[in-house]
Amino acid sequence: MLVEVVGGGSLGLLFAAKLAAAGCRVKLVTRSREQAEAVNKKGIRVEGWTELTAEVPALAFPDAVSGLNSADRSEARFILLAVKQTAFTEELASYLISSMEQGAGLVSLQNGIGHWEKLDSEKARPFMIQAVTTEGARRLSHSEVAHTGRGWTRIGHIHAKDTEPHTEKVPQINLKTVQDCLKQAGFDVFVSKSIERHIWSKLLINAVINPLTALLRIPNGKLPETSDSLLLMRKLFEEGRDLALTQHVTVEESLWDEILEVCRKTAVNRSSMLQDIAAGRMTEIEAITGGLLAKAERAGMSMPTHETVYRLIKAAEQSG
Amino acid sequence: MLVEVVGGGSLGLLFAAKLAAAGCRVKLVTRSREQAEAVNKKGIRVEGWTELTAEVPALAFPDAVSGLNSADRSEARFILLAVKQTAFTEELASYLISSMEQGAGLVSLQNGIGHWEKLDSEKARPFMIQAVTTEGARRLSHSEVAHTGRGWTRIGHIHAKDTEPHTEKVPQINLKTVQDCLKQAGFDVFVSKSIERHIWSKLLINAVINPLTALLRIPNGKLPETSDSLLLMRKLFEEGRDLALTQHVTVEESLWDEILEVCRKTAVNRSSMLQDIAAGRMTEIEAITGGLLAKAERAGMSMPTHETVYRLIKAAEQSG
Repeated sequence: MLVEVVGGGSLGLLFAAKLAAAGCRVKLVTRSREQAEAVNKKGIRVEGWTELTAEVPALAFPDAVSGLNSADRSEARFILLAVKQTAFTEELASYLISSMEQGAGLVSLQNGIGHWEKLDSEKARPFMIQAVTTEGARRLSHSEVAHTGRGWTRIGHIHAKDTEPHTEKVPQINLKTVQDCLKQAGFDVFVSKSIERHIWSKLLINAVINPLTALLRIPNGKLPETSDSLLLMRKLFEEGRDLALTQHVTVEESLWDEILEVCRKTAVNRSSMLQDIAAGRMTEIEAITGGLLAKAERAGMSMPTHETVYRLIKAAEQSG
Repeated sequence: MLVEVVGGGSLGLLFAAKLAAAGCRVKLVTRSREQAEAVNKKGIRVEGWTELTAEVPALAFPDAVSGLNSADRSEARFILLAVKQTAFTEELASYLISSMEQGAGLVSLQNGIGHWEKLDSEKARPFMIQAVTTEGARRLSHSEVAHTGRGWTRIGHIHAKDTEPHTEKVPQINLKTVQDCLKQAGFDVFVSKSIERHIWSKLLINAVINPLTALLRIPNGKLPETSDSLLLMRKLFEEGRDLALTQHVTVEESLWDEILEVCRKTAVNRSSMLQDIAAGRMTEIEAITGGLLAKAERAGMSMPTHETVYRLIKAAEQSG
């Protein structure tokens, strides 16, 4: 079994190194040739919760398209996708689709839902697995990563087509195989029958809290404290819930309580979006609210509150 | 003819003093007894474009309800309403309605449309005149005001009921009389047949520009510069235009050009709403966007973009 880890960020490095150290055949695909060279030369060093150095052959993405496909086509493999939504290009999407059409499984560690449609093809769909992880990692250099917190990882099949209800397809890539492989590498992995619910929950929590805290420039805990921002949170929640329903995902009322709970638990935190806006950086708005709005547009649904905060954040990015 | 000037702010003091100096019988109604006492003692001093001191009898609002009505009921009079929307209480509204029902004309210098419905009664409607002024004034003390810029004043009848098309009623108070009286006091006054268009234009210009500049914390000129904020401006404009139509007011496309022109002409200005938010003060959001939303609710219309920026400004006021 070959595991092709796509993405040399914190999670990509962590998973690649731990899989390789457990004896799995791993290839790392990075964005830059510079990083591929560094990893080929020094291996990947992990510190913190895990302490190890693993040799991992690496190559940069444009080279991977020809390089990996020809050499490793025959071997059973899955791709562990660990790039940010913002780095998810059309070029990468077609590479992944063609890999899946050739039989490779795809396990996506990406947050959000922006990639689901881009990867949706009749043939590829049964090969798509979505993962949600709470493993904590921070990249220290091209080839070094800190394992900052031990978490859990849930994996499950998603249905990628907007209009199609969830059906039980026989997956070509076995969830059990992926689970065993990741377990062997030391990760706590659970198979989930409702992975989409987990993804949607995480997405809606972010979509409700992050843009508002960024626009109002307040820490998370302040958000539910005024009646007007609470009302905005509720509108964002309800628009998101209605959208999820068009995708055959039921969002329970308990997620609303969870959102309020997240604000309480992270009361003094300034969301990453607020930090980005304050520092004049680009935010993750495309991956979070942008992904919802793209879904809504395809579903012919209007999400005016999300649309307004999305435009405000985009405008703030540009004038910041 | 008695002119009762209600409101001791910059415009109230300016109009009261100039009317009194021109020989008109004027009474000033202030919010505080303190101000009434100061005016009774010192008169009103105007400096700048106009230099004069005028004796004007003044009394505080709660006293005016009994005081003025009994003494001056018999005389033909009009009320010049010069209080801010935020100071427009239910108590003041019923005083004005009962004055109108007794035959007094009402000339409102207020911006916005929030007061129209509050003053709407079958009997009072024909007595209502709306004014738009570009006279510039700044209050210096309880009894002193600077006339900072000479402008023009337009007056006209409004139809106050949402569902009723504009009909030509025979006004009980003559526009010509009001015009002559104000002209005599040195104001350039025009009678307008489309005063509502002027009011709506001014209101929509403010509703499109002010909340967005406050939320994005940018000067007016930056607003149309990014595609996302331009799109938000357009949405606010279109929602406002659609609302105006339900009120039988046609907003021309040329107002959109005018809004962009205002941004250009005031490019380096920070809107008063931005200044208020930055200083942690209450803003005029209730009088501007709040007034539109109240109209929309009564018309059964949804204005989601205005609603979202309204809530954001209110939340920003509270957490500022």
